[in-house]
Amino acid sequence: MSNRKPYQLVSREWKKENTEFTVNGVTIGRDLLMIAGPCAVENREQITTISEYLSKLNVKFLRGGAYKPRTSPYSFQGLKTEGLQLMREAADKFGLGVVSEILSIDKISELEEYADILQVGTRNMQNYPLLKALGKSKRPILLKRGMSSTIEEWLLAAEYIVSSGNEKVILCERGIRTFENATRNTLDIAAIPLVKSLSHLPIILDPSQGTGIRDLVAPVSSAAIAAGADGLIIEVHNQPNEALSDGDQSLYLDQLKDLLPTLKQIAHIREKRFDFESNAYQYSTQ
Amino acid sequence: MSNRKPYQLVSREWKKENTEFTVNGVTIGRDLLMIAGPCAVENREQITTISEYLSKLNVKFLRGGAYKPRTSPYSFQGLKTEGLQLMREAADKFGLGVVSEILSIDKISELEEYADILQVGTRNMQNYPLLKALGKSKRPILLKRGMSSTIEEWLLAAEYIVSSGNEKVILCERGIRTFENATRNTLDIAAIPLVKSLSHLPIILDPSQGTGIRDLVAPVSSAAIAAGADGLIIEVHNQPNEALSDGDQSLYLDQLKDLLPTLKQIAHIREKRFDFESNAYQYSTQ
Amino acid sequence: MSNRKPYQLVSREWKKENTEFTVNGVTIGRDLLMIAGPCAVENREQITTISEYLSKLNVKFLRGGAYKPRTSPYSFQGLKTEGLQLMREAADKFGLGVVSEILSIDKISELEEYADILQVGTRNMQNYPLLKALGKSKRPILLKRGMSSTIEEWLLAAEYIVSSGNEKVILCERGIRTFENATRNTLDIAAIPLVKSLSHLPIILDPSQGTGIRDLVAPVSSAAIAAGADGLIIEVHNQPNEALSDGDQSLYLDQLKDLLPTLKQIAHIREKRFDFESNAYQYSTQ
Amino acid sequence: MSNRKPYQLVSREWKKENTEFTVNGVTIGRDLLMIAGPCAVENREQITTISEYLSKLNVKFLRGGAYKPRTSPYSFQGLKTEGLQLMREAADKFGLGVVSEILSIDKISELEEYADILQVGTRNMQNYPLLKALGKSKRPILLKRGMSSTIEEWLLAAEYIVSSGNEKVILCERGIRTFENATRNTLDIAAIPLVKSLSHLPIILDPSQGTGIRDLVAPVSSAAIAAGADGLIIEVHNQPNEALSDGDQSLYLDQLKDLLPTLKQIAHIREKRFDFESNAYQYSTQ
Repeated sequence: MSNRKPYQLVSREWKKENTEFTVNGVTIGRDLLMIAGPCAVENREQITTISEYLSKLNVKFLRGGAYKPRTSPYSFQGLKTEGLQLMREAADKFGLGVVSEILSIDKISELEEYADILQVGTRNMQNYPLLKALGKSKRPILLKRGMSSTIEEWLLAAEYIVSSGNEKVILCERGIRTFENATRNTLDIAAIPLVKSLSHLPIILDPSQGTGIRDLVAPVSSAAIAAGADGLIIEVHNQPNEALSDGDQSLYLDQLKDLLPTLKQIAHIREKRFDFESNAYQYSTQ
Repeated sequence: MSNRKPYQLVSREWKKENTEFTVNGVTIGRDLLMIAGPCAVENREQITTISEYLSKLNVKFLRGGAYKPRTSPYSFQGLKTEGLQLMREAADKFGLGVVSEILSIDKISELEEYADILQVGTRNMQNYPLLKALGKSKRPILLKRGMSSTIEEWLLAAEYIVSSGNEKVILCERGIRTFENATRNTLDIAAIPLVKSLSHLPIILDPSQGTGIRDLVAPVSSAAIAAGADGLIIEVHNQPNEALSDGDQSLYLDQLKDLLPTLKQIAHIREKRFDFESNAYQYSTQ
Repeated sequence: MSNRKPYQLVSREWKKENTEFTVNGVTIGRDLLMIAGPCAVENREQITTISEYLSKLNVKFLRGGAYKPRTSPYSFQGLKTEGLQLMREAADKFGLGVVSEILSIDKISELEEYADILQVGTRNMQNYPLLKALGKSKRPILLKRGMSSTIEEWLLAAEYIVSSGNEKVILCERGIRTFENATRNTLDIAAIPLVKSLSHLPIILDPSQGTGIRDLVAPVSSAAIAAGADGLIIEVHNQPNEALSDGDQSLYLDQLKDLLPTLKQIAHIREKRFDFESNAYQYSTQ
Repeated sequence: MSNRKPYQLVSREWKKENTEFTVNGVTIGRDLLMIAGPCAVENREQITTISEYLSKLNVKFLRGGAYKPRTSPYSFQGLKTEGLQLMREAADKFGLGVVSEILSIDKISELEEYADILQVGTRNMQNYPLLKALGKSKRPILLKRGMSSTIEEWLLAAEYIVSSGNEKVILCERGIRTFENATRNTLDIAAIPLVKSLSHLPIILDPSQGTGIRDLVAPVSSAAIAAGADGLIIEVHNQPNEALSDGDQSLYLDQLKDLLPTLKQIAHIREKRFDFESNAYQYSTQ
């Protein structure tokens, strides 16, 4: 851990205490942030079914892609504005916050209208004009790590947003690209505590993109919280086998439910408030 | 080499013969395309000195960054419009074509005004809204490989541009990210013949970004042409040790001159017309 | 997860239940296996001090290198036979099992004499003559993952040992080599549950080699057990700053003590018996 | 290129002029070293047919595996002593030198009896006891780069051999492991000139292992010589489609013949004597 760091505003040296901010009743950076939902919004029934289920589990945030950055121009590119509208409608009905991806500057105002948190995907982590523009937004930014970005480059990407005026940045480890292809990416678990030591920003983990394999989501989610992560973003689908994208890595709804008790126990050890369970668990801030 | 390819318009199956198009007198895809210039335009004297030197070597294309995608928000971000103006002025004076990087959709028309070829950098290879917008441009697009992109993802990025209407795409291998840090990136030399077999698009190589070490530029440039590359894009500077960026990998002007005779010999073997020498070398198309 | 697997004897298809075997009172594969000790045995005082401390924590296994595979021929190569003797002496005094690395076939009988578990290091994971010879040993083999080996290659290396006659193989994830150099290696946390699903062999994790940073050892150890690991191998030293090798990643003895209560809590959740604490925790086999 | 290098005897600082030594009439380090042959010796007819063909092309070295390090214990492991005998017999009949792989210390004397050059494969590059033992051999050692080894680690492996007494080391770049799986490995072409600047040892390239694709062998071989390589080791087979191993990357015999004229032209530019052609090309040492 070098002493000369090229980033400033996001560093622990700049600010000792954790950055915390509250969205939809969850104090991100202190409580455990649970985000779940489908890879892409597909239709009203899908997104409503999933939202209702999440609300019953007391998961407070719905994820869903409306503008999808697909590797092939011939793949499903998302429902766009309609997708955002369907997601907002379902989220409002069940009291959820909305997280969705922003691909270009010209869509920022639309995303701000429909979403509570704007996600920058792995392919745009070094899209600097976009990062600067998001520095002018009032919405928190979920900044995924570039699939081949070093931790330093990632923190510098966050520095672009913060130095442009927006301090509400949530980092998200989503796996890096390596020679190993048994999993879709290689989750860098050590990045969780390392980033916590280098920066005051909250950091969560994406076990779905990170592994690409449904059965690995539960153990890896446990590991992330044990390592000190501030939350998780998990892909779930009411019918994974019929999903238009990423079905293999999406949990069945019941699998999400089954996952929560263990996560709760580990979060308890880490003194993270577990917002999606009964309010009995009210830990003092660590 | 799998039989089922997810790209179509850029594939050899779609079009057997090489894509060729002429810019500033050079028939790209047939002649050897030589592009040289500084990492960033810094001032009139710098860009004029370099341009004059290139014209004497008969190198027909000037590269130079005006909008620079820098890892840190605190690094020099380029002269922007002024940089483009200075570059166009110098290029016009010495009969050069201009290659410069495009970072966002809102700058496309400006870049089209000042540059002959628009470069998409490694960080934007999967910026799909930008690629689609460039598909509407009349200018050729120099598409650098993402630093952690597979060849398939790279060809799919080209497919985004071509399927949006612009067939003039030049691929550029610039090294991938690996564990080896003796060089800045690891140049994937096999990508040259592999891409030539998979696609009809021209492909060039960037030995400067690819190695990050000045003394490796000459031998790696020779290797690229020997492997069948359609050209090179090389960083040169009149005062590398005072360059605002990438000085360590920039050739001195005299080093560029010294490099050319060997390249000419290898290009001759590969039956590539060597446009930057006397017009005595007029090979028939291979 | 492909259906056609090239390995057989180590696969879950071949044997459904976990492989378990008892060494020094610990049932590996069922209990939590805790191994700790210095990178290299340096002298009697060092190894005795560490051994005594481990015994007080009820950690049952002492690690220590006597034959060290060093990248440079000019680095400390280990105390060899003398190191093994010192380690055995200290271990016997405090009731510990010994784990040490084997580098070549001609040293197997010596290692068998002094050590309870023979470790194959990352550089020898594909040293097939050595693996075959270890298949004839009565000692359990701790098989570290090659630093650039896929999970499939790793399981095939285990298959070499098992198919040669030795079923007592413990796999050890120790990080893979990637572009990220903020940590010494990138720990592949998903490998833990993935290997548990593919194979019946026990798997542990090395947070010291895996991160190379002392402060990351505790959170990463917690993550490993949360992910389902069967144990940990941790570098500790009585004077890390004066260690002859790997001091930066070695825990102070007190740090090891401080780490254990959290590990105990997470092991409890995973129903792993915690042998190094009071015998109060006697879980039924999962 | 750091100034403080951990290796000494293999460095250019230690010895300015190229290391050169003559085997079977070829002065390695000055002439172009061409080695060709099958992945594995399979039977007398195969190795005799190939040897005769090589002798007609004036290729002076036959490669062939007798002890094969296979990823699976169930794959063909080589003909062992019989394979060495068949290879020596065929080589002697047609005036060829023999290159074959050494896997363990106890086979060194056997290999020395049958082979002129002993090859250390990629999996054994950090098998230090083996390297030290080979430092006592009179035979030159062909040291392949570890598939995930840095250039520094590779030169340190060579330092193990040289510091143990054997100065005749030939380095061989054979591709490193990266995320790209369109090719078997990623050939690090910049390693050729970089190693030439760092070390006085000869360096050759393996385009067959390096790419894993037959059609890429010719262009990549040209690139290697253009980059300054001292030679090539190429897999050829009289019946690639029936080869017991590595058939997909083995050239047909006629493809080897067709490859040579272009290599000769590029070697001429690089002032490497082309030993496998007529003796007309006698360049002075560079």
